[in-house]
Amino acid sequence: MGQLDTSRVVSCELCMQDGGILVLRTDKLRIIRAEDFDHPAFYRVIWNDHVSEWTDLASPDRALMMAVVEIVERVLREQLEPDKINLASLGNVVPHLHWHVIARFDWDARWPSPVWAPVHRLVTHAAGKLATTLSQLDLQVAQAVTAKLANGLN
Amino acid sequence: MGQLDTSRVVSCELCMQDGGILVLRTDKLRIIRAEDFDHPAFYRVIWNDHVSEWTDLASPDRALMMAVVEIVERVLREQLEPDKINLASLGNVVPHLHWHVIARFDWDARWPSPVWAPVHRLVTHAAGKLATTLSQLDLQVAQAVTAKLANGLN
Repeated sequence: MGQLDTSRVVSCELCMQDGGILVLRTDKLRIIRAEDFDHPAFYRVIWNDHVSEWTDLASPDRALMMAVVEIVERVLREQLEPDKINLASLGNVVPHLHWHVIARFDWDARWPSPVWAPVHRLVTHAAGKLATTLSQLDLQVAQAVTAKLANGLN
Repeated sequence: MGQLDTSRVVSCELCMQDGGILVLRTDKLRIIRAEDFDHPAFYRVIWNDHVSEWTDLASPDRALMMAVVEIVERVLREQLEPDKINLASLGNVVPHLHWHVIARFDWDARWPSPVWAPVHRLVTHAAGKLATTLSQLDLQVAQAVTAKLANGLN
């Protein structure tokens, strides 16, 4: 038996599962790619411990997490040249701190609405319209975040 | 005639208008309250210059803007004890950098969906259900941000 881990909430799906395709995990946070066929370049930066609100995090942890969000945004912009990046920390259904980082395109299924709005158009094989493959994108995200963390936050 | 202001885009509504009820304006940013009758405690922190993406801002400006977002979040949590705070920077329709800071309640019209989803229930006079008046809340936000900026970011 390991040590009791009080940072996990058994009823919380982001405590018990990765929450998507794991791209990178550090001791404090992880990056996953959501399997969203309408919005394929959809990443989440998830705090590993169970924390609900952004301001529940200590200031250095917020700086770390936002730095990672920003790296993911930069990679998506560089690799995909999206029409817009959408960032959001909502958590109404799963109140475990996570940032959505989503590359949006003017051809995507809900553009220009947020991804939580009803579909505006049917788009088949959206991932095929991206400038790179999702596995290549995952690798770029992982490498960029790893490099950033190795070099320190500033 | 004043000096030519190249930071403004004439076709951009957040360059040309406050974008809501003005709560506080500094040289770099402003805070407005959106007049959203379904989600009355809905604030936006808007960068004054026309910038599209979060990572278009210089690092010190991102730190400033996020510090203000965090103060607004803290005031909403302290004054209203919401079920969740929602933070988002989207800008698909108006690509002028702004953060949504929204107090959400389990009785609100779209809970637990994001505010951009279809309505789940009819709620009349939502503002009347808050623990304080909106004008009092605006004042608390303005005072807290003013105090934070006067004391420096750290």
